Amino acid sequence: MSAIPGDPARYNSFLTDLLGVMAYGELSAFERLSSDARYSPTLHDRAVLGRIAVVEFQHYELVRARLEGMGVDAEVAMLRFQPSVDHFHERTRPADWYESLMKAYVIDTLYADYYRAVARYVDAGTRELIGQIQSAEEATAVLQERLKAALADDPRLASRLALWARRLLGEALTLAQRVSLEYPLLGGLSGLDDAGAKELVDSLTVELAANHSRRMAGLGLAG
Amino acid sequence: MSAIPGDPARYNSFLTDLLGVMAYGELSAFERLSSDARYSPTLHDRAVLGRIAVVEFQHYELVRARLEGMGVDAEVAMLRFQPSVDHFHERTRPADWYESLMKAYVIDTLYADYYRAVARYVDAGTRELIGQIQSAEEATAVLQERLKAALADDPRLASRLALWARRLLGEALTLAQRVSLEYPLLGGLSGLDDAGAKELVDSLTVELAANHSRRMAGLGLAG
Repeated sequence: MSAIPGDPARYNSFLTDLLGVMAYGELSAFERLSSDARYSPTLHDRAVLGRIAVVEFQHYELVRARLEGMGVDAEVAMLRFQPSVDHFHERTRPADWYESLMKAYVIDTLYADYYRAVARYVDAGTRELIGQIQSAEEATAVLQERLKAALADDPRLASRLALWARRLLGEALTLAQRVSLEYPLLGGLSGLDDAGAKELVDSLTVELAANHSRRMAGLGLAG
Repeated sequence: MSAIPGDPARYNSFLTDLLGVMAYGELSAFERLSSDARYSPTLHDRAVLGRIAVVEFQHYELVRARLEGMGVDAEVAMLRFQPSVDHFHERTRPADWYESLMKAYVIDTLYADYYRAVARYVDAGTRELIGQIQSAEEATAVLQERLKAALADDPRLASRLALWARRLLGEALTLAQRVSLEYPLLGGLSGLDDAGAKELVDSLTVELAANHSRRMAGLGLAG
């Protein structure tokens, strides 16, 4: 697959969609995480989620700046993805702090995987932008630590959080498929017809699910 | 009044309280603003509130770092102010985006005034920290612009927002008096007995109320 697709207009529209969904995803993750932060059991934990939320906002700003650099109205680019992303969040409202923590962890790592996969098909400049956004592994490590500690403190949490994480994965994959196929985000890649795009989304789904499963096992949870 | 008070232990306890209430104030302003951001009418406006929320979080981080540099557990320093600050926010839940915008503006400017007043009584290092936190006038200008535009679009908003701003002022002054006197925050300043602290708080109240009134007039609202 070529890194810079052949049809510039088609690629440009693909890129606008990709950056649009990234921008809106980051902006809404920021809002949800920072709202959830208030339910943290300690002030220390509130700051942990807050710090991660702030990083999401900074990602949003980077992507927005790139869209505007392309002469695209970031709001317009984001708007078409708002219903799908909002729907995802409506369906995955955490019931407490532990579920918020898990949601932050699952979203953070799935975003990173999704971006890494998509980065294979974009131009060098966009790949660099995606690299900047991905480099928040420190935040992910903090979440992982915090989840491990919570699970060690209260083993009964494990089954609840395992179930919750599976629901999050299911909703997130549905979202990823929807935005990738409906818009048609990945169909905009040069050389991909509808069947090719579908195949790409399917293999992406398998990859995301496998990575997620490995991470859950790392927490001692059944994936 | 001397800039560096005479009794080091007393001053240190004053400073811990001052930084504690500042840190908790900034952390909760961050959470409230970023939660409110979701109700903004446009994605552009969501980002406006989000950006201001992020600045509050950065302020929180600065103050927390200072507390930890003093060997103080920031969580402990913040905890005693949590009930009062939470109570303030519970009593001032915005009903919509315009009320959120006004709340952000009122809080931002009152914090700045309060910090400026308190900076007169602290050591040079703390004064510098307060200066860093105050220098977000750009954010304030954005809020002011946005409020002016909203009021120009819908003149019926004026009476509702004027009333709301008066309530915010009343609750904020109550909060400032409570944290200043009860703890006894300002009483920790060298050379101030209870009566002196009370006098200081009273003059601060008058100053904050006058500045607020001037700003409301600047928006075309009855203070």
